[in-house]
Amino acid sequence: MLPAPIAWGSRHTVRILDQTLLPTEERYLDLATVDAVAEAIRALRVRGAPLIGIAAAMGVSLAALDGQGAVDLAVVLRACDELQATRPTAVNLFWALDRVRARARAVDALGGELHPALVAEATAIWNEDRAMCDRIGEAGLPLIPEGATVLTHCNAGALATGGIGTALAPIYQAHRAGRRVSVVADETRPLLQGSRLTAWELTQAGVPTTVIADSMAASRLRRGDITCVIVGADRIARNGDVANKIGTYALALAARAHRVPFYVAAPRSTFDPATAEGAAIPIEERSAAELRRAGGTVVAAAAAEVWNPAFDVTPAELVTGYITDAGLLTRSELGRLA
Amino acid sequence: MLPAPIAWGSRHTVRILDQTLLPTEERYLDLATVDAVAEAIRALRVRGAPLIGIAAAMGVSLAALDGQGAVDLAVVLRACDELQATRPTAVNLFWALDRVRARARAVDALGGELHPALVAEATAIWNEDRAMCDRIGEAGLPLIPEGATVLTHCNAGALATGGIGTALAPIYQAHRAGRRVSVVADETRPLLQGSRLTAWELTQAGVPTTVIADSMAASRLRRGDITCVIVGADRIARNGDVANKIGTYALALAARAHRVPFYVAAPRSTFDPATAEGAAIPIEERSAAELRRAGGTVVAAAAAEVWNPAFDVTPAELVTGYITDAGLLTRSELGRLA
Repeated sequence: MLPAPIAWGSRHTVRILDQTLLPTEERYLDLATVDAVAEAIRALRVRGAPLIGIAAAMGVSLAALDGQGAVDLAVVLRACDELQATRPTAVNLFWALDRVRARARAVDALGGELHPALVAEATAIWNEDRAMCDRIGEAGLPLIPEGATVLTHCNAGALATGGIGTALAPIYQAHRAGRRVSVVADETRPLLQGSRLTAWELTQAGVPTTVIADSMAASRLRRGDITCVIVGADRIARNGDVANKIGTYALALAARAHRVPFYVAAPRSTFDPATAEGAAIPIEERSAAELRRAGGTVVAAAAAEVWNPAFDVTPAELVTGYITDAGLLTRSELGRLA
Repeated sequence: MLPAPIAWGSRHTVRILDQTLLPTEERYLDLATVDAVAEAIRALRVRGAPLIGIAAAMGVSLAALDGQGAVDLAVVLRACDELQATRPTAVNLFWALDRVRARARAVDALGGELHPALVAEATAIWNEDRAMCDRIGEAGLPLIPEGATVLTHCNAGALATGGIGTALAPIYQAHRAGRRVSVVADETRPLLQGSRLTAWELTQAGVPTTVIADSMAASRLRRGDITCVIVGADRIARNGDVANKIGTYALALAARAHRVPFYVAAPRSTFDPATAEGAAIPIEERSAAELRRAGGTVVAAAAAEVWNPAFDVTPAELVTGYITDAGLLTRSELGRLA
């Protein structure tokens, strides 16, 4: 059974699975304010580029609920701004909020009620994402033959989306089709989304999964038993450069060294035509505490500095192909998504 | 002030700094039996290829102390075998024990007292290692200009040797010579020797150090502010292939991609003429628990498998040069160490 990382709660709240507590605790939170949703996104209680977009869209609706009657468009737009400022790298967040803003303005201009319209828009974004995940799974299915072993990084699965994931979607489709498929999951320091989330959701679904430290991937690729690497993306520039979880670039270099195909799976909301190339993508730097501690214990010498970029950029020339809701595309075919 | 990871304790014990407790606690243990030394090596309380050799040599002397009078050569040789079985990859351990065995046999054949001879041999190995560290530092000093930033992996410093380290020796020499030098330290999952040990000893000595996750090294190399990469080694094969802490290979690939020089620093006891190439080096696989937990907290989904090789092999073609006690050598010059 795949976990559901997001839902509408009772009384129009936004219900999320608090991903910071996995895999040891499965706790759901009912978020009732825009502030609470913003906090949940910043603290990575809800994470994954597509899911952040969905959560933010759902979160905006809470602003329209606050007034309990006459709701001001300005309040809704301020909520959009607040949620937009939570994280800088994933473009799905901005894409979803742009849709919500447009819908709010249109409804307001017609004198309609904002809350139901915002709930409908967020639900549409979520449903579309679920459908895009399914199409990504279908597009990637031919890459997962019987007996395949896929190496992945971070979590681009059900916990990162409104559906069966992006990078993990082809794996779930192959598993459902009765093919034996297994996964090697990078643990993904510092926040261990690979060992905590990817290994959890895959094994919940019955897919055999092996956890490795990020630094072991190159050795594993040399061993020769990896069919392909599939990762998600937080933003894909016009030239095909990919911003994704820190460590993706090192993995792409190792895959290239061993001639193992390296695929990036993403819905069209991750493609950003406004960004020409990877160097223009802002990279979020997160708190030093994420590296100073591991599992709550101090692990770094107190006098040392810390550098903690959350993402890196993989140049397009290291990407074998893009698994999208518009099919499996080469770099030169990315224009189709515009 | 550099820490002293090993010493002779009172009443001929082997005193070690328990490195598993750093950086939060500085606790010294007096080991009084061969079993205790073997346990300390297996549990990584004492670690680092050169230091393991020194600790094992010192540990053998405890077998000659047990008898409190007439000591059997067979007991000493059994102690050598027990210590030899602690860890399979680093060759310094076998090299040191071979020296101890030869000394024990020679003294026994002459009817001499074993204990003082074994203490003397272990002390000689330790003193020679200290001198080798100094020579490695001198050989590497020209690679560390004013303002240099060195990227390193794991811990190949004072805590890994009987002196000022191997990979860190040129850095300490440059620092002592008054050059501004800083270090970027991979944290080195799973056991975090980089953030726990390297960052600790360097900052104790006044060298500015920045900790990064292993997966960030490729991004850092791309940034262009790394002068060179220097790592230690657990065994170097005849053809120049290098077994070192898991993650070294990925780092070498990233350094190559960015044309940053990649150096391996090691004393001659790390070179193994009996091993033709890296593929013949046995790679220790350690407990899954090291990856299932981080800082004592469960971080991996319980149903997932774990693969936990402690070392990897970097092919000689990725190594710019070898910083040794016989100078800075190219691959073709390694024969000089024989």
